[in-house]
Amino acid sequence: MKFEVTILGSSSATPIYNRNPTAQALNINERLYLIDCGEGTQQQMLKFDVKASRIDHIFISHLHGDHYLGLVGLLSSLHLNGRVKPLKLFGPPALKEIIDIQFKYSETTLHYELEFYPTDPSGPQIILENHDIIVETIPLDHRIACTGFIFKQKKTLRKLIKEKIEALEIPVSFYSQLKRGLNYVAPDGTVYHNDELTIDSVAPKMYAYCSDTLYNQQYFEQIANANLLYHEATFLHNMLDRALQTHHTTAWQAADVALQTNAQQLLIGHFSARYKTLNELLDEARSVFPNTELAIEGKTFTIGA
Amino acid sequence: MKFEVTILGSSSATPIYNRNPTAQALNINERLYLIDCGEGTQQQMLKFDVKASRIDHIFISHLHGDHYLGLVGLLSSLHLNGRVKPLKLFGPPALKEIIDIQFKYSETTLHYELEFYPTDPSGPQIILENHDIIVETIPLDHRIACTGFIFKQKKTLRKLIKEKIEALEIPVSFYSQLKRGLNYVAPDGTVYHNDELTIDSVAPKMYAYCSDTLYNQQYFEQIANANLLYHEATFLHNMLDRALQTHHTTAWQAADVALQTNAQQLLIGHFSARYKTLNELLDEARSVFPNTELAIEGKTFTIGA
Repeated sequence: MKFEVTILGSSSATPIYNRNPTAQALNINERLYLIDCGEGTQQQMLKFDVKASRIDHIFISHLHGDHYLGLVGLLSSLHLNGRVKPLKLFGPPALKEIIDIQFKYSETTLHYELEFYPTDPSGPQIILENHDIIVETIPLDHRIACTGFIFKQKKTLRKLIKEKIEALEIPVSFYSQLKRGLNYVAPDGTVYHNDELTIDSVAPKMYAYCSDTLYNQQYFEQIANANLLYHEATFLHNMLDRALQTHHTTAWQAADVALQTNAQQLLIGHFSARYKTLNELLDEARSVFPNTELAIEGKTFTIGA
Repeated sequence: MKFEVTILGSSSATPIYNRNPTAQALNINERLYLIDCGEGTQQQMLKFDVKASRIDHIFISHLHGDHYLGLVGLLSSLHLNGRVKPLKLFGPPALKEIIDIQFKYSETTLHYELEFYPTDPSGPQIILENHDIIVETIPLDHRIACTGFIFKQKKTLRKLIKEKIEALEIPVSFYSQLKRGLNYVAPDGTVYHNDELTIDSVAPKMYAYCSDTLYNQQYFEQIANANLLYHEATFLHNMLDRALQTHHTTAWQAADVALQTNAQQLLIGHFSARYKTLNELLDEARSVFPNTELAIEGKTFTIGA
């Protein structure tokens, strides 16, 4: 099952040429989930061949412009391009008001249904569960209400060991129970333990997306053992004062979060426009947590690679 | 006096790779005036080295997203970059509401004053007059309320013919009256007609910006004799039906507007995403009005060249 994230933008609020504000496209089993949608995300999708029409879920972390100002344009374009299938949107309650007022004055009535699911930053919440994935919010510590998102693959069924099943002539009607981990009791009363008959499926993987936040241990437990942790790293650690003041994280701190929470791999982003090149941010993070990568636009990262 | 326009975007609502929605930067005597501000305008300014900090006036024609969705991001960036001088914003009344709600939820209090001047599409109005320019709205015929804008240079003072002034020993205190066109009465009672003593200044030039509209003679008189007429030309004339349905203009019609209103030069833009190349649009317009150019992003056009 495909589980990968493509970076569409990773700059912070102040614009810088050729870097775009935050947006990521998550491909989970060939379905696209958009996380944040800064200004220009539509152009980035066209540039990197991410098909907007394939997005069925959008998650907005918070209402600072660099995380949502591309949304109304995207919703409008989907409408103009003839979308009819519903779209699920998750974000702070006021996001709906912001969208509605703009469609009101542009006299736009979407041809498709926009299903809105308000997030609540007061505590972690499961906001979506489907065949492939469970999505949970991460309450973060920013200047305004902000939630990150955890995407956890669903555990898939155990796999039958064909030779054993056939040797024991187990009827097909028992297969689904075996896949779910139950033991098999033969007609003669013999109990065959599930472990003998099946093998475990691949361990489910997890992507944790921590957008704008102060370094704060409150969310560490929730993101523990992520296969891929995206964490903002707006500043170098020599600008810790500025990070504290603006409720952001330094590259050093982001790497420390990865270390403390036992992440497999760290992806840093949300870079301040003051950094024309990003090597220093990467070096700083790698000095603490070697398996770190930069969230470079257009790059795709496999989760749990 | 510099009077030129740089195209920052000229696509219509549906996005297309590497073309941006409508925005233009007008340089009038080294002051920048922004006309419309589609999504991504900030990036376009960085790309074409148009300094956002030099903009003191922004004009929004109407509330379709491809004409204003870059505005909140731009206003926010000016704030983050330390702007303190006031900014004048002209646009439909609801634009203020759209901005206010977004700054409310992002908890942004601008460091500079945003002076808002609502436009009224019910008739032409002078909305700005300063040392250099008079700006007037053009009520257009679109699906929602929409105004274009006319930028008319102020007539500058007449120039003194130095030799004659000196020969007649006209006192300096009379100069400003002469520059304003008054005659000179010498101490002996002789009347010297102003024409003998001064020459007329360069004729003031005019830029007419007609964004989204049906071809409609109602605005022809107002834009008559423009040195440069920007007119939307969303479709080729073989899509007239679609133009009528969506309240847009064809390239043929835009050229006919230029012809009927005696424009010196025509600039066409707001191209539909269906046109991957723009030659056909240009050829069609030039077949009616030869002095036509495409509003290509990054190009600068001198008004009255």
